[in-house]
Amino acid sequence: MAEFLVHIEIVWPPDAPVEQREEIFARELEQGQRLAHAGQLRRLWRVPGRWANWSLYEVADATELHTALTSLPLHPWMDIEVHALAEHPNDPRALGIEPTAPRPEEGVR
Amino acid sequence: MAEFLVHIEIVWPPDAPVEQREEIFARELEQGQRLAHAGQLRRLWRVPGRWANWSLYEVADATELHTALTSLPLHPWMDIEVHALAEHPNDPRALGIEPTAPRPEEGVR
Amino acid sequence: MAEFLVHIEIVWPPDAPVEQREEIFARELEQGQRLAHAGQLRRLWRVPGRWANWSLYEVADATELHTALTSLPLHPWMDIEVHALAEHPNDPRALGIEPTAPRPEEGVR
Amino acid sequence: MAEFLVHIEIVWPPDAPVEQREEIFARELEQGQRLAHAGQLRRLWRVPGRWANWSLYEVADATELHTALTSLPLHPWMDIEVHALAEHPNDPRALGIEPTAPRPEEGVR
Amino acid sequence: MAEFLVHIEIVWPPDAPVEQREEIFARELEQGQRLAHAGQLRRLWRVPGRWANWSLYEVADATELHTALTSLPLHPWMDIEVHALAEHPNDPRALGIEPTAPRPEEGVR
Amino acid sequence: MAEFLVHIEIVWPPDAPVEQREEIFARELEQGQRLAHAGQLRRLWRVPGRWANWSLYEVADATELHTALTSLPLHPWMDIEVHALAEHPNDPRALGIEPTAPRPEEGVR
Amino acid sequence: MAEFLVHIEIVWPPDAPVEQREEIFARELEQGQRLAHAGQLRRLWRVPGRWANWSLYEVADATELHTALTSLPLHPWMDIEVHALAEHPNDPRALGIEPTAPRPEEGVR
Amino acid sequence: MAEFLVHIEIVWPPDAPVEQREEIFARELEQGQRLAHAGQLRRLWRVPGRWANWSLYEVADATELHTALTSLPLHPWMDIEVHALAEHPNDPRALGIEPTAPRPEEGVR
Amino acid sequence: MAEFLVHIEIVWPPDAPVEQREEIFARELEQGQRLAHAGQLRRLWRVPGRWANWSLYEVADATELHTALTSLPLHPWMDIEVHALAEHPNDPRALGIEPTAPRPEEGVR
Amino acid sequence: MAEFLVHIEIVWPPDAPVEQREEIFARELEQGQRLAHAGQLRRLWRVPGRWANWSLYEVADATELHTALTSLPLHPWMDIEVHALAEHPNDPRALGIEPTAPRPEEGVR
Repeated sequence: MAEFLVHIEIVWPPDAPVEQREEIFARELEQGQRLAHAGQLRRLWRVPGRWANWSLYEVADATELHTALTSLPLHPWMDIEVHALAEHPNDPRALGIEPTAPRPEEGVR
Repeated sequence: MAEFLVHIEIVWPPDAPVEQREEIFARELEQGQRLAHAGQLRRLWRVPGRWANWSLYEVADATELHTALTSLPLHPWMDIEVHALAEHPNDPRALGIEPTAPRPEEGVR
Repeated sequence: MAEFLVHIEIVWPPDAPVEQREEIFARELEQGQRLAHAGQLRRLWRVPGRWANWSLYEVADATELHTALTSLPLHPWMDIEVHALAEHPNDPRALGIEPTAPRPEEGVR
Repeated sequence: MAEFLVHIEIVWPPDAPVEQREEIFARELEQGQRLAHAGQLRRLWRVPGRWANWSLYEVADATELHTALTSLPLHPWMDIEVHALAEHPNDPRALGIEPTAPRPEEGVR
Repeated sequence: MAEFLVHIEIVWPPDAPVEQREEIFARELEQGQRLAHAGQLRRLWRVPGRWANWSLYEVADATELHTALTSLPLHPWMDIEVHALAEHPNDPRALGIEPTAPRPEEGVR
Repeated sequence: MAEFLVHIEIVWPPDAPVEQREEIFARELEQGQRLAHAGQLRRLWRVPGRWANWSLYEVADATELHTALTSLPLHPWMDIEVHALAEHPNDPRALGIEPTAPRPEEGVR
Repeated sequence: MAEFLVHIEIVWPPDAPVEQREEIFARELEQGQRLAHAGQLRRLWRVPGRWANWSLYEVADATELHTALTSLPLHPWMDIEVHALAEHPNDPRALGIEPTAPRPEEGVR
Repeated sequence: MAEFLVHIEIVWPPDAPVEQREEIFARELEQGQRLAHAGQLRRLWRVPGRWANWSLYEVADATELHTALTSLPLHPWMDIEVHALAEHPNDPRALGIEPTAPRPEEGVR
Repeated sequence: MAEFLVHIEIVWPPDAPVEQREEIFARELEQGQRLAHAGQLRRLWRVPGRWANWSLYEVADATELHTALTSLPLHPWMDIEVHALAEHPNDPRALGIEPTAPRPEEGVR
Repeated sequence: MAEFLVHIEIVWPPDAPVEQREEIFARELEQGQRLAHAGQLRRLWRVPGRWANWSLYEVADATELHTALTSLPLHPWMDIEVHALAEHPNDPRALGIEPTAPRPEEGVR
């Protein structure tokens, strides 16, 4: 299995009817959850202020990733950049590191 | 707590003595593990082919992130870009989604 | 609380009806003032010559910032770039520095 | 008086002697405070992860700004970009808006 | 007074009716001359091959410049970049230098 | 005769001896004035915050311009971009427009 | 014969009728195979996540390449970048190198 | 197995001793051939005019690719960009297409 | 007389009627030949794969060039970049160098 | 034979000894003339203000071009970009068009 970092920018026409937008965004959320249940989509964040997001995928290879991304209902309106990732020997997950203390809400500087 | 995606490019002089490089890279790995144990550094990947990496940090805010990043021994040789992340309602982790089946080695296309 | 510097470019169709533009820009100004009264929008400047602006927000984190920015009526026509800011030990506000003399109108070179 | 947003990137040789760096950075902080007391430097933030900062200046014009910026001891090592700002009729400061309630630590989303 | 260098790119739809274009370009020329008579627009050049120009403005500050530029009838179709200028001690105009000889038509290489 | 807009960035090593810098900058100013007296260099402005400038040249053609620019003592340290300019029918100088009123110090917004 | 690396981005309107898209993409595939049979198109890969591809062409020269690329039915919707390639003395194909062992499915790290 | 397109730019100091350059370039060629025999490096082309090349790798994943690329003696002087490739259903190799006729030397336009 | 290198990108709507395109491209070719006969357009090449070209113009100055380029029927759909050229003392044409031997079809490497 | 447009930027250390520079530039000019006599280098222009040039090469293919460009003594200090050119049916040289009248010195606007 390989991980990929994916940046997606949504280019949606600002004057499209609201119902059309709500309908397609609802289907988008559903398909995103399907990819999550399948273990392909692992994390998802918003880019603040934009119709854009960063996500982390775990798939066999770039071909499976392409299939997953083009299954998204909003794909025709998406500008997608894929970053292939190689394993790092110091990756906390690979090292099995769990934080030694619960993180306080405010953080320690 | 807030997550940040961090892209680090290392600009190390190619003709520096090997021992100097090995010494500083060893200290770099140690400090990375310290940040992992503190729960600040959560994931770490290599950019294939480059002295560069992507990492995922979980910290109180940008000020704590700055402190963490400047604690790295290689920091003076790093070119760092920070991407602030906002929570996405469909983030698998937030939804508590666990993949429903163990991922096969080869993937399903 | 965290500060963010925000750059907003408005991509409004030049041949849209004047009334539509005036109506939405009026609502934009209102919502901007609401964010100011809520203490989220702290400063606002125009980029000379453009339908664009720089603003300074003070919010809990990037997620609250995203909510504030997407509440703007013109948001679908905006191209937004967010710059996360870390505290600087020499920030005049943090140091409690008040200018020692009223600034003359013409400045001293 | 006119406000300018200033982005400064410091290009300091990573292998310069520590004492030289500490000496010049100390002088830099002093001169920064002098500009703050003179009412020219109004705000200062770090760009997280970098030897870089954003600042807000209030000066008579671009010529006075140039004099202020070139007075910084680190100026020869700085890459500076200046953004001229025009007044915005909805600027909270110009409207005299004070937040109506103390901002809670956690923010309201 | 402050000088600004202004680069304007006109993004006019190529298939708009010719009369509409001629009408608005005529009004543009008129308003340009009005700004020239007011002493705000000092020089104006075409970028060869493009619907674009460079101009030199002399105004009180960026706010007055914004008002001047948004008064242009073609402003909604313009992509404008403003370059703030600081005085240079060697500026021929500031030094009162007049060329010592009439320039020949062919130049001397 | 043809006008050219010229943008010059000076890439001077920050740790070069002060005397060397003062000596060459002095020669630079002298040669700049010589070009001004010859009618080639017409205007000169600083880019605020940078060792950079914008200038306006009036020469026979690009070949004469190249000769003028390479005559500058700092030329080996310069990064120069030349913008060819075409005459604009609405150029205030070509139209012989003189501002109708002395510009007030503060400007009229 | 000369090889060229070709990057093609397809800019297809996302709201065009499905039948139109299917019809033209079908013709695109056919023409691609025709170019392959003619020995001009040698390899073809997808850019993961995008309506984009990389391809390897082997043609007499850039003029023949232009003819091949403009024969594609989707050409008017394509943004194409051509990279001319020179022969490398260490190219495995030129050296007649065949991998010495069948590649295992999982690879050896 | 997965294919990757790799762009390598070599940043070699122009004034380094010729022997040093010849020695390292010789080792580079050797290691390149080793990767070719291992079936990882499949094709290699020069970018005309530059110390740069395009190559095609076939490896298990980005982690194996990273290992291969960092095994190159010139790696510390390389600026590498990796393009992940997904399979295309119309790839001539996947379709088993062999050109139907030997390509003439001059090509048919 | 001065030479200019001109890069033209044609942004033609892909779904415009074929007849309209043929009609305007025919007029474009005619006007191009007129400029060639007038000695202004000296060379013309296609950018392989694109509706774009490079051309070499020989005109009095940038103002004459602007007139020539805006006379092209496709000008409103063109994105044009002009590169001013200065004479080079080693230009084969200036040196009157004629190749000493007919170039063979295949070249000598 | 194929034509290529070549852009060369020379990155020469500004503080290198003058004799070294004069010696290598002299050899550069010689080799340039050799390429001209061989019919490979057809035209050569300076980029005004820069140690940079545009040139037109006519060679068998990109491989021969690479050999020609790397034969230049200054090649290790050059940043070269090659633009492959395809034949244009309206190229004045291909059409055998000779200007119908001697070009006047001043041009006709």
